[in-house]
Amino acid sequence: LDYKISFEPLGIRINCPRGATIFEAARDAGVTLTSICGGRGICGQCRVQILDGKTSSTARKKKSYCNEQELDEGFYLACETIPLGDLRVYLPLTSLSVEQRLQINGPDVASVIDPVLAHYELDLRDYMPEKSYLDWDNLCSILKTQSIRCARADLSVLQRFSSILHSPVSTIGITVRGDEVIDIHQAGQEILGVAIDLGTMKIAAHLVDLNSWKLLAARGVTNPQVAFGEDVMSRITYALENGGNKLRSSVTTAINQLIEELTGDVEKVAELTLVANTAMHHLLLGLPVSHLGRAPYAPVIRSSLDIKARDLGLHIAPGAYAHFLPGIAGFVGGDHVAMLMATGIHDTDKTVLGIDIGTNTEISLARKRMMSCVSCASGPAFEGAHIENGMKAASGAIESVKIGRNRIELTVIDNVPPIGICGSGILDTVAQLRRHRIIDKRGRFQDHEMVCQGDNGCEFILAGACDSNTRKNICITGGDIAEIQLAKAAIRTGIDTLLYESNTNEEDIDEVVIAGAFGSYIDVSSAIAIGMLPSISLDKFKQVGNAAGVGARLALASKRHRSMAQKIAEKVRHIDLGNYSEFSSRYLKAMWFP
Amino acid sequence: LDYKISFEPLGIRINCPRGATIFEAARDAGVTLTSICGGRGICGQCRVQILDGKTSSTARKKKSYCNEQELDEGFYLACETIPLGDLRVYLPLTSLSVEQRLQINGPDVASVIDPVLAHYELDLRDYMPEKSYLDWDNLCSILKTQSIRCARADLSVLQRFSSILHSPVSTIGITVRGDEVIDIHQAGQEILGVAIDLGTMKIAAHLVDLNSWKLLAARGVTNPQVAFGEDVMSRITYALENGGNKLRSSVTTAINQLIEELTGDVEKVAELTLVANTAMHHLLLGLPVSHLGRAPYAPVIRSSLDIKARDLGLHIAPGAYAHFLPGIAGFVGGDHVAMLMATGIHDTDKTVLGIDIGTNTEISLARKRMMSCVSCASGPAFEGAHIENGMKAASGAIESVKIGRNRIELTVIDNVPPIGICGSGILDTVAQLRRHRIIDKRGRFQDHEMVCQGDNGCEFILAGACDSNTRKNICITGGDIAEIQLAKAAIRTGIDTLLYESNTNEEDIDEVVIAGAFGSYIDVSSAIAIGMLPSISLDKFKQVGNAAGVGARLALASKRHRSMAQKIAEKVRHIDLGNYSEFSSRYLKAMWFP
Repeated sequence: LDYKISFEPLGIRINCPRGATIFEAARDAGVTLTSICGGRGICGQCRVQILDGKTSSTARKKKSYCNEQELDEGFYLACETIPLGDLRVYLPLTSLSVEQRLQINGPDVASVIDPVLAHYELDLRDYMPEKSYLDWDNLCSILKTQSIRCARADLSVLQRFSSILHSPVSTIGITVRGDEVIDIHQAGQEILGVAIDLGTMKIAAHLVDLNSWKLLAARGVTNPQVAFGEDVMSRITYALENGGNKLRSSVTTAINQLIEELTGDVEKVAELTLVANTAMHHLLLGLPVSHLGRAPYAPVIRSSLDIKARDLGLHIAPGAYAHFLPGIAGFVGGDHVAMLMATGIHDTDKTVLGIDIGTNTEISLARKRMMSCVSCASGPAFEGAHIENGMKAASGAIESVKIGRNRIELTVIDNVPPIGICGSGILDTVAQLRRHRIIDKRGRFQDHEMVCQGDNGCEFILAGACDSNTRKNICITGGDIAEIQLAKAAIRTGIDTLLYESNTNEEDIDEVVIAGAFGSYIDVSSAIAIGMLPSISLDKFKQVGNAAGVGARLALASKRHRSMAQKIAEKVRHIDLGNYSEFSSRYLKAMWFP
Repeated sequence: LDYKISFEPLGIRINCPRGATIFEAARDAGVTLTSICGGRGICGQCRVQILDGKTSSTARKKKSYCNEQELDEGFYLACETIPLGDLRVYLPLTSLSVEQRLQINGPDVASVIDPVLAHYELDLRDYMPEKSYLDWDNLCSILKTQSIRCARADLSVLQRFSSILHSPVSTIGITVRGDEVIDIHQAGQEILGVAIDLGTMKIAAHLVDLNSWKLLAARGVTNPQVAFGEDVMSRITYALENGGNKLRSSVTTAINQLIEELTGDVEKVAELTLVANTAMHHLLLGLPVSHLGRAPYAPVIRSSLDIKARDLGLHIAPGAYAHFLPGIAGFVGGDHVAMLMATGIHDTDKTVLGIDIGTNTEISLARKRMMSCVSCASGPAFEGAHIENGMKAASGAIESVKIGRNRIELTVIDNVPPIGICGSGILDTVAQLRRHRIIDKRGRFQDHEMVCQGDNGCEFILAGACDSNTRKNICITGGDIAEIQLAKAAIRTGIDTLLYESNTNEEDIDEVVIAGAFGSYIDVSSAIAIGMLPSISLDKFKQVGNAAGVGARLALASKRHRSMAQKIAEKVRHIDLGNYSEFSSRYLKAMWFP
C-alpha cells in the first residue's frame, strides 16, 4: 500500500509508492518541484521540510545544501528522501515551481487628506553659512521658523544626523510623524510606505510612494506559519505548547523578505500598516494567545497600536513605526475593519452585508447606520483542505465546473491538465450536482449514471485518470459534499443571525459585498444554489477582491482613516455565535440544500 | 634594565624586573592583586587584560580561567605572564583587592513636586466581577473613570498584561509616564529609579525608591572605558579609529552590573536618569563623536533626551525610559548642568563660581542672574597621571602632606605604608614647597637641604624607600611640578576669563562651589597657595561632593527639575577658550606661582 504525503502550503495530498522518493511521488502527482539535476541529488534545489512522519535514514546525505538551522528544522532534499510512512511536507516557495495564485490588488487610493507623515527638504545654506556649527538644537530652531514642530527625534536620527549634515550635499530631507522626527536622509530620496495584509494563509504587501500616493508594487507570499498548522486554532495550540517565538519569527522573516524584494532598500520605508485577524495580530506582536484559544476568545487588546517597527524585528527605516489597525473581537480582526472601511460599509444608509470568506468567515451587517458582526468557523474546505482531491488555487487546480448532459466542462488554472480541485471548483461542482438532482437536499448521492462507486462510497468523477496530470481520477466524494455542507451552513447561520438580530429580511438587503481572494473567484450563483448566500438578485452582489489590503493602504495614507478605523471597531456590535442560543437549530437547518 | 608596567584604572606605574611575572612585580610594588593560591596559577583570580605590549608565550596556559571572549580581549593570569617589554595592563575590579575611593553621595532629595511617573494600584474586583473578559481597552476605560490618562501602552506591557491580570491576585499596579503605560505588575511591588553619574573615570549609581523618594543605596565603579584611553580625547580617538561599539558596550555592561547589584531585580527600575560629560553622553548613545574631537567641538545634540532604556541595551523594566540631562557644549555636559541645578547656582542673586575639577574642568560664573561657563583642559595630573609616583585616590595613596622644618607629615589613605601620591597630596606638596621657598615663582627647585638629585634632575623625597611599600623613594620631581603648573594655570585662566567677561573682580565673588570627588578632598588653602583658585576668604569656599549625582536624582524625581535643567542649559553662555584671543597671555601668566 502507498503512503500519503500532504504538501503544505499547496494543500494537496498525493500517494507515494513504497520505495519512491518524495521528489518522484510529487512529480508523478503533477506537483513540480524545482530541480536542475532532475532528482539526482546534485543541484540541491528540491529542499523540503518534513513536518510530520518518518523518512529513510539514507536521507540528508547532502548536508551541504542545507545550513545548520535548516537541518535542525528538518530540511531534506526531496530527491534523496524516501517516506517510511505518511508524511506532512512543507514546500518552501523556492522549491515550488508553481506559485499559488494570490489576490493582492484592489482599487487605487485617491488623494490624501491629513497624512500621517510630513516630509520636508531644507537647503541648509539658506539658514547657515557655516554648516559645521549646526547641531540638533540649531536644526530644531530652523525647523521652528518653518512652522515644523519636532519635539523629539528618534535615536537613530540623531545617530545619523551629523554624517548626513556634513556630507557634500547641503540639502537634507526629514520625515516627521506627530512631533517626532523619525527619519533624516539625503534630499530627493523616495519616501515609501508598506501596507500589509497578514492572513492565515497568505501575506500580501503593497508598496506605496508616500509623496505621490501611487501604488508602486504589490507582492504576496504564503504565510510560512502554515508549516505550524493549517488554521488559526492549530497555530494557537502550537504557540501554547511550544511558545510563540517560532511562529513570530517565521512571519517577521517573511514580511522582511517581502519588503526587501519590493523596495530593494528597506530604509526608504518610513511607515508600515498592518491588518490581520486577531490571532495573526497577537502572534506577530508577541501577545499571549491563551485566551484566544478558548471561549469567550478574548483578545488582549482591540484598539489600534503604533509600535516602532524595530521592536517587532521588522526591518524598515530605523525610526519608523508600524501601525496595527484595530480589531473587534477574538475572531473579528483588523482585516475585517479594514474591509468595512475600504468598501464604505461603515458609512452607508443602505442595508449592506459585508462578507470575508475564509477558514474563518467574518460577516458584518450595516442596517440603519448600525453595524453588527459575527464570525463563523467555516473551516478550510474552501481552501481545498479536507477535500479528497482538494488543493489551493494554484496551477493545475480545477477552478470552475459546469455539468451538462453527459459532459463536464472544466476550467483549470493555467490551462494545464488538472491535478486537483480548488474551492471555487468544489462550490461549482456541488451546485451543479444539486441542480441536476445528482445529490438530494441532504447531500446524499442519488442513483445517477454519472455517479460511481469509489473506495469510500459514491463519488462523482470530474476528470478521469487519463485526463488528469496525476494519472488518477479527480472526483468529488460524499465526504467532500459533507465538508461543503458544514462550511456553507456556518456562513449561512452567520448571515441569518445578523439579519434576525437586526430585524431584517433577506429582501431588505440592498447589497452584499464579498471580499477576499476566495470570494473573488467564486461563482455567486453557485453559492446561492447551495444555500450559502441568500437567494436575492445577482446584481446586488459585489465581489471586491482584497479590500482589507485597500483598507491598510488607506490607513497608510491618512490619520483620518486611522481614526475612522478606530471608530468602526468601537461601533460594530459583535454577536458571539458560540454563546448564541438559536445557533444549533439554525445551523442544522442551514446544512440542507435548497 | 627593568620594564615598566602601568596599571589601569589605578593609574600607577611600576617597575618589573626581567623574568618576573606581572603578579610578582605588582606585589613588590605594593599593588595587591586578588589571589587565593598566592600566584601559583591555580585559583585563576588574578586575571588582567593586556592593553599594550608583549608578554611571554608561556602565558595563557590556564585558558579555563578565561572565557573565549576574554581570551579574544587579551585577558591573562597575572601570575603566569612575564612581560617582554613595557606593558599597559588593565586590572578588572574583580582582580584588584583595593577599591578606588569613589565619592558618590550627596545631600538627600527633599519632597517631590510634579513627579515624572505616576503609580496606581487597582483592585479589579471593584470594577468587574468577571475578570476573564477584561481586555486592554476595558482596562483603559476603567482607568479613565479614575481620571488616569493612558493613550498608549508599551508593547511589553501588553505582552505581560493578561498573565498578570489572570494571576490569582486581583490587584494590579500600573506605572504611567505622560500618556503611556510603561509598566504593569503585581500590586505592592517597589517602584525604583536609578540616577547615574557617568564620569570619564567613574560611574556612580544612586538607587531611589520612587514612592518614598528615599535614597536606598549608592554604588560606584571605575568606568571600564579607561581600558581604551585615560581621557576623553583618547577615547574619542579610539572611537574614530575602531568604531564606538566596544566603548559603548563596556559602559552599558558596567551600568547594567551596577543596577543589578543595587536592585537584585532590575525590572523594578521604572526610570533612569543619566548625567555625563558630552563625550561620555555621545558614546553611550551611539552618537558620532567626530565633531567632538576637533574645534569647535560641536556636540550632535545639547537638549535633554528621553529614550527607551532597551534601545540603549540598558536592562531595567522593559518599557522604562532613560532620561539624559541636557548639556551646554562639547566640553560642558549634562553633569555640569546637574551640578548647577543641585547647588542652586542657577537661581541666586549672589556672585557664585561653580567648579567641577577633573581631567577636564568646567567652571560657571553666576553674576547678576546671568551665567557663563568655560571648560579648561586641566589634564590628568590631579588624577595622578603624568606624575612620577602619581596614582588615583586608592588605598596607599598619600592624600595630604605637611612639610615642617626637617620633617614631613603624610596622611595615607587607609593608613598603610604609602605606594604613591594622589591629586590632593600633590597639590599639598607643591603648595608646601612654594611656602617654604623650596621652589621659586617659576616652579624651579632651589638649593635646599631637602632637595636631592634624582635620575632626571632635582626631586623632593616625601617618603624614603624604607618607609614606602614599594621599597623605592616616593618623590616629587621637577617634571611633576611642571605638570601641576599646566593644570592649575588652565583652571585659573578659566576663572579669570569668566570674571573678565562678566566684568567682575575677585573680591566681588560671594561664594566658590567646588564639586566632584577630587574637589572634595583638596585642601583649598593649598589650591589658593599655588594660584589655582583666587585668593579670597577661605569661608567663601564650599566643597559639595558629587553634586552632579544629586542633580541626576532631582531630575529622577520631578518634571519640574527636568525643565529646570533644560532652561539652565539654554541660559548659560559658553565661552570657547580655544577661540579666545586673550587665552595664551592669561595662561602663561597663570603658570607662575604667587
